[in-house]
Amino acid sequence: MTVTLDTICRVIGCDVPSGAGAIAVQGIASIEDAEPGEITFLSNSRYAKFLPETKAAAVIVPRGLTPPPGVRLLEVDDAYLAFVRILGLFDSRSRGDVAQGIHPSAVIAPDATLGENVSVGPCAVIGRSVTVGKDTVIGPGSVVMSGSRIGSGCLFYPNVTIMDGCSVGDRVIIHAGAVIGSDGFGFAPEGRTLRKIPQIGRVRIEDDVEIGACTCIDRAAFGETVIARGAKLDNLIQVAHNVKIGYSTVIASQTGISGSTTIGTGVKIGGQAGFAGHLTVGDGASVGAQGGVTKDVPPGEIVSGYPAKNHQQAMRLEAALRRLPDLLKTVKQQEQRIGELERIIRRQDEDNA
Amino acid sequence: MTVTLDTICRVIGCDVPSGAGAIAVQGIASIEDAEPGEITFLSNSRYAKFLPETKAAAVIVPRGLTPPPGVRLLEVDDAYLAFVRILGLFDSRSRGDVAQGIHPSAVIAPDATLGENVSVGPCAVIGRSVTVGKDTVIGPGSVVMSGSRIGSGCLFYPNVTIMDGCSVGDRVIIHAGAVIGSDGFGFAPEGRTLRKIPQIGRVRIEDDVEIGACTCIDRAAFGETVIARGAKLDNLIQVAHNVKIGYSTVIASQTGISGSTTIGTGVKIGGQAGFAGHLTVGDGASVGAQGGVTKDVPPGEIVSGYPAKNHQQAMRLEAALRRLPDLLKTVKQQEQRIGELERIIRRQDEDNA
Amino acid sequence: MTVTLDTICRVIGCDVPSGAGAIAVQGIASIEDAEPGEITFLSNSRYAKFLPETKAAAVIVPRGLTPPPGVRLLEVDDAYLAFVRILGLFDSRSRGDVAQGIHPSAVIAPDATLGENVSVGPCAVIGRSVTVGKDTVIGPGSVVMSGSRIGSGCLFYPNVTIMDGCSVGDRVIIHAGAVIGSDGFGFAPEGRTLRKIPQIGRVRIEDDVEIGACTCIDRAAFGETVIARGAKLDNLIQVAHNVKIGYSTVIASQTGISGSTTIGTGVKIGGQAGFAGHLTVGDGASVGAQGGVTKDVPPGEIVSGYPAKNHQQAMRLEAALRRLPDLLKTVKQQEQRIGELERIIRRQDEDNA
Repeated sequence: MTVTLDTICRVIGCDVPSGAGAIAVQGIASIEDAEPGEITFLSNSRYAKFLPETKAAAVIVPRGLTPPPGVRLLEVDDAYLAFVRILGLFDSRSRGDVAQGIHPSAVIAPDATLGENVSVGPCAVIGRSVTVGKDTVIGPGSVVMSGSRIGSGCLFYPNVTIMDGCSVGDRVIIHAGAVIGSDGFGFAPEGRTLRKIPQIGRVRIEDDVEIGACTCIDRAAFGETVIARGAKLDNLIQVAHNVKIGYSTVIASQTGISGSTTIGTGVKIGGQAGFAGHLTVGDGASVGAQGGVTKDVPPGEIVSGYPAKNHQQAMRLEAALRRLPDLLKTVKQQEQRIGELERIIRRQDEDNA
Repeated sequence: MTVTLDTICRVIGCDVPSGAGAIAVQGIASIEDAEPGEITFLSNSRYAKFLPETKAAAVIVPRGLTPPPGVRLLEVDDAYLAFVRILGLFDSRSRGDVAQGIHPSAVIAPDATLGENVSVGPCAVIGRSVTVGKDTVIGPGSVVMSGSRIGSGCLFYPNVTIMDGCSVGDRVIIHAGAVIGSDGFGFAPEGRTLRKIPQIGRVRIEDDVEIGACTCIDRAAFGETVIARGAKLDNLIQVAHNVKIGYSTVIASQTGISGSTTIGTGVKIGGQAGFAGHLTVGDGASVGAQGGVTKDVPPGEIVSGYPAKNHQQAMRLEAALRRLPDLLKTVKQQEQRIGELERIIRRQDEDNA
Repeated sequence: MTVTLDTICRVIGCDVPSGAGAIAVQGIASIEDAEPGEITFLSNSRYAKFLPETKAAAVIVPRGLTPPPGVRLLEVDDAYLAFVRILGLFDSRSRGDVAQGIHPSAVIAPDATLGENVSVGPCAVIGRSVTVGKDTVIGPGSVVMSGSRIGSGCLFYPNVTIMDGCSVGDRVIIHAGAVIGSDGFGFAPEGRTLRKIPQIGRVRIEDDVEIGACTCIDRAAFGETVIARGAKLDNLIQVAHNVKIGYSTVIASQTGISGSTTIGTGVKIGGQAGFAGHLTVGDGASVGAQGGVTKDVPPGEIVSGYPAKNHQQAMRLEAALRRLPDLLKTVKQQEQRIGELERIIRRQDEDNA
């Protein structure tokens, strides 16, 4: 695929470097790897050291940089966002790569209802009474179990499992190996054995959600586990029964959320974070990677560490902890100095007596 | 589905509120979400604030609560257990949703032995010499590889993988995407490369075990990885080679157990906990969420934190840590005060000299 | 399977105990579980207590141990490596167990190119323009999507997903449920919503790599996510977009590596470790289990804890932390003692005045 610099500049809204509009760009690369004919960007200052020697045809940069000799800069307000637009120009992947039409090896229940232009890949399975909205693509080996309702324009990659009775909105993307609607983890002790608590609820995923590979979202014990509109979940995440995740919330890989916890809207959660059950995390809060959240988090609060606490406080404690070995020495010396003072005072007393 | 309050009271063993026996209950909901015609419960005092305004047809509660005006209480000894029984009343999910009979698209080796009333879903695969006990259901897309023995009354959800030569007891439930019998992670260094150590053992899962979605249980290097009777494992758990997990032990999501570690009976393990290899965790021990266990845990001990230590001690250390910034200030002030005392004493000495 | 002690001694290069060469060994077991007719080994001193009572036909041991009465020792330089060789002798598992030939239920695109002796299991799917090298085995239910190139001698277990346009070298082993080439997790904020950043790069896995069950390796946003030759990844690992993992690096289960981080060659990473994005981990470094790496790690450095720091320093801080409750008491006592000294000095001053 080839795009001229003219086109690129028009898409990102910057001036075309003089005489360079016809240059053909064949691809995208990082600033250190770019070859002649490729375009790159500089947004994170960590990579600025690579700018003078880059071989890229052009570098998308924030305004105000001095161009090193022989390096062609494209100045924009937000270099990262501009670069994201360019990625779209070079995107040759298509939904047809995942599945195109109904493959003869797909197994579709006679009473399932498929909208217009639905694709179902090889060896995929659509269960009884399932409905699938128009333009949705179900990848090879994926299974949608009985009674689930899938919206339109969705894209399910291979080997996804949607359990029975779940609901998925429009334009939802689910990556390979994800499991939606597995049983919540609930057992009631009966003497020394454990009785399974029926998990009769479901999962409801709203529009424009994205669910990562091998992420597991358990159905509710009763009622619903909810992933609200526009939430984005990375790979290998655990969402337990009756959890609610709010609008436009972003959760990084390997995070785990225990039962009945409610995460607000616009929350940002780092990787490998964990949440106890029955908590409320307020709108706009942030949780650091590997944070262990054991209490409610107020709206807008930034927490980190285990147990998670205000991030500034966590950093102060971490800084204080680094000073602890010296503190132990200081206190030991003070112990001697105080003892010495006490001996002197006692001797004075005895002398005075 | 509709159940009368009469039936509900009979099932949970409580008095029928006068004149209310014929009321039709259509469903179950949480105390804050319940609509008229739904039943709910109150067990965790965190939710007591919702009691006065609940619209539920009735609320299952522990004995001794004062009923707010217009709220119908069903008093029992254990509100949670009573509620679990009611969940069963409303459970319309069935094993037939997972698979019913042998689907023509299933691929079953000619020498596999299937008991009476076994179901194998679409595109599932049963390998050579596999045996499957009566009434077991193998979900769509699941694979049971050669020589494995599956008991009776099991329920495997879609896209489960059972590797070759493994053994699964009776009434075992395995959720979607789980992998049983993958190779243990073992490599012997040979110069700068790594030689794979053959993993020739197997996995043995005993009766009444439940395994969560995308949980991985590695086969033994030699001998067996064992999940003992009645153990319950949540989603996305890693069980390494030669691990033994005891009777009725409960392990929450995303926990990882390294090779050759033995977990006793009735152990409770929180989410995202980790265990080093070759450890022994005693019967009845508890490990907190995100705990990092680096040493043996005695029977009955409760541990938490990283590295995991007695939970009371961990809490004391955490409380002490919070006081550390103030302590640093105090010691700095003491340093000045001690210095001042020393100066005074020295001056006295000089004066006296 | 039966092997004589003669054969075993020849394979591991040790003397045959006198008169014992013809003894038939039927299997392998741990030192505490071994029955007569089985062989075992002793390498970790933690298990030495089982040596005197072992029933094993023979025990592979490091040189210099005194044989307890009735226990037959096979002395070698490295008992563990010798034992690994013996495991190979008893390995009856075969690639044919995974798949043998092209199963009629496999779905293979007409323009896919399969080398000699390729096996594709039941219900596996090979997409458009895929190439698969000779002797490679694709397990049941696995999906290789369009345009991917798979080398020769690979072994993919069941329900593996290789997304479009990825590249896998020779002799690569991928365990069940793993996902290669899922989208990187990238979204650009647009007002209160999130715009998906196209992930147009790919994953390149080099020769002799092993990837564990349910491990997820995201494709690059652009360019490549790279797993270099001989790297070994355990189960349930997250590798984000544009990560590079070096030659012969070993990563234990449930570790997560954020975007654009580069891990060097010969690095050892414990389970459940986490890495922030855009970091560099030097060659030969080690990261402890559950470590949270937030900064670059120099070559050869050993780090642990959260935030990860030099392991010796982390241990010192942990030891210091355990002394903190006592320190708080000591400082409180010193506070009183200093106060008392100050009172005495003040009184002296007043007396002298």
